[in-house]
Amino acid sequence: MANGVAGPEIERLVQLLARLPGLGPRSARRAALHLIRKREELLGPLSEAMARAHARIVTCSVCGNIDTSDPCALCQDPRRDASTLVVVETVADLWALERAKLLSARYHVLGGVLSPLDGVGPDELGVGKLLARLREGGTREVILALNATVDGQTTAHYLADLIAPLGVRTTRLAHGVPVGGELDYLDEGTLAAALERRTEL
Amino acid sequence: MANGVAGPEIERLVQLLARLPGLGPRSARRAALHLIRKREELLGPLSEAMARAHARIVTCSVCGNIDTSDPCALCQDPRRDASTLVVVETVADLWALERAKLLSARYHVLGGVLSPLDGVGPDELGVGKLLARLREGGTREVILALNATVDGQTTAHYLADLIAPLGVRTTRLAHGVPVGGELDYLDEGTLAAALERRTEL
Repeated sequence: MANGVAGPEIERLVQLLARLPGLGPRSARRAALHLIRKREELLGPLSEAMARAHARIVTCSVCGNIDTSDPCALCQDPRRDASTLVVVETVADLWALERAKLLSARYHVLGGVLSPLDGVGPDELGVGKLLARLREGGTREVILALNATVDGQTTAHYLADLIAPLGVRTTRLAHGVPVGGELDYLDEGTLAAALERRTEL
Repeated sequence: MANGVAGPEIERLVQLLARLPGLGPRSARRAALHLIRKREELLGPLSEAMARAHARIVTCSVCGNIDTSDPCALCQDPRRDASTLVVVETVADLWALERAKLLSARYHVLGGVLSPLDGVGPDELGVGKLLARLREGGTREVILALNATVDGQTTAHYLADLIAPLGVRTTRLAHGVPVGGELDYLDEGTLAAALERRTEL
């Protein structure tokens, strides 16, 4: 906070900026000053971009992605392979996969992972909606592209158990050495997985 | 950048957010998603706060501070000691001193420091305006509260030389061990300054 030093307009701007992930009180002050210094090139356009996003962006009722249309562009795209459904934790993960241009599938955004301590159960994640989508038929494979964290993998196993009776193939991403990764910096779990699933050269 | 994965509204938001200090492309994406998730509590209010700041905030023509009035509230405050002028590099430095509530003086914001390699000379810093302010009389002491960097101290010496003929006392902040600081983590220059200016106990 600028602590009453600056006027109320700046105070409010700093307080709201400090609520962005990655910005603390000090960097929010720096960001506010930067914005005010670049009034015409940055503050004005950013304010407008936010107003437009606020007015137009909605959450896709089918997959949980965000877009200006509902269903989102990915769900409406007829060229996408409807038989593969990729389950991700967040929209950021969906974007990461789309940037990599590795698949042309449909998505399902959980919005998080199971975390009983934080009060996140199957209902909060909309697991019922995912199962309903699968029961509609047409899906041959569900790729559980959840993070390789304890919570992510627990959620993957939980979902796999629920999906099994539906007769849909369920897969998850492989564990191993990241491309460009150095063994010295990897944890034992990753090394064990990489060794166990070693491939012929 | 979201690299064409998200719609143009989100792309633009991410691109503009990435131009804030402290946010790179990845954290700008995270910030955009956070904003969109908190549409009503954060995105809307922040957009409005920015629009208001854009419309109302101006740079004080007297001291270079930012405020919704020109001259700014600090310059207009009759209770402030007009005989002491504190010269700072940036508005952030002014805020830091005001938060500490150590003085009730007037300020002069240079907007930077001399840096010939970056094309920042006396004209860019408005040194002429500072000298004109001092020539109006009424100032007994100029505190050069510039950063203890090479550029900051070069600028301080340059300004001190220009101010000397005006018969105004010129001071700068003391160097020494920061309160709570550990000697082991301090550079030699700081230790030398702290030793040289040691005080009786």
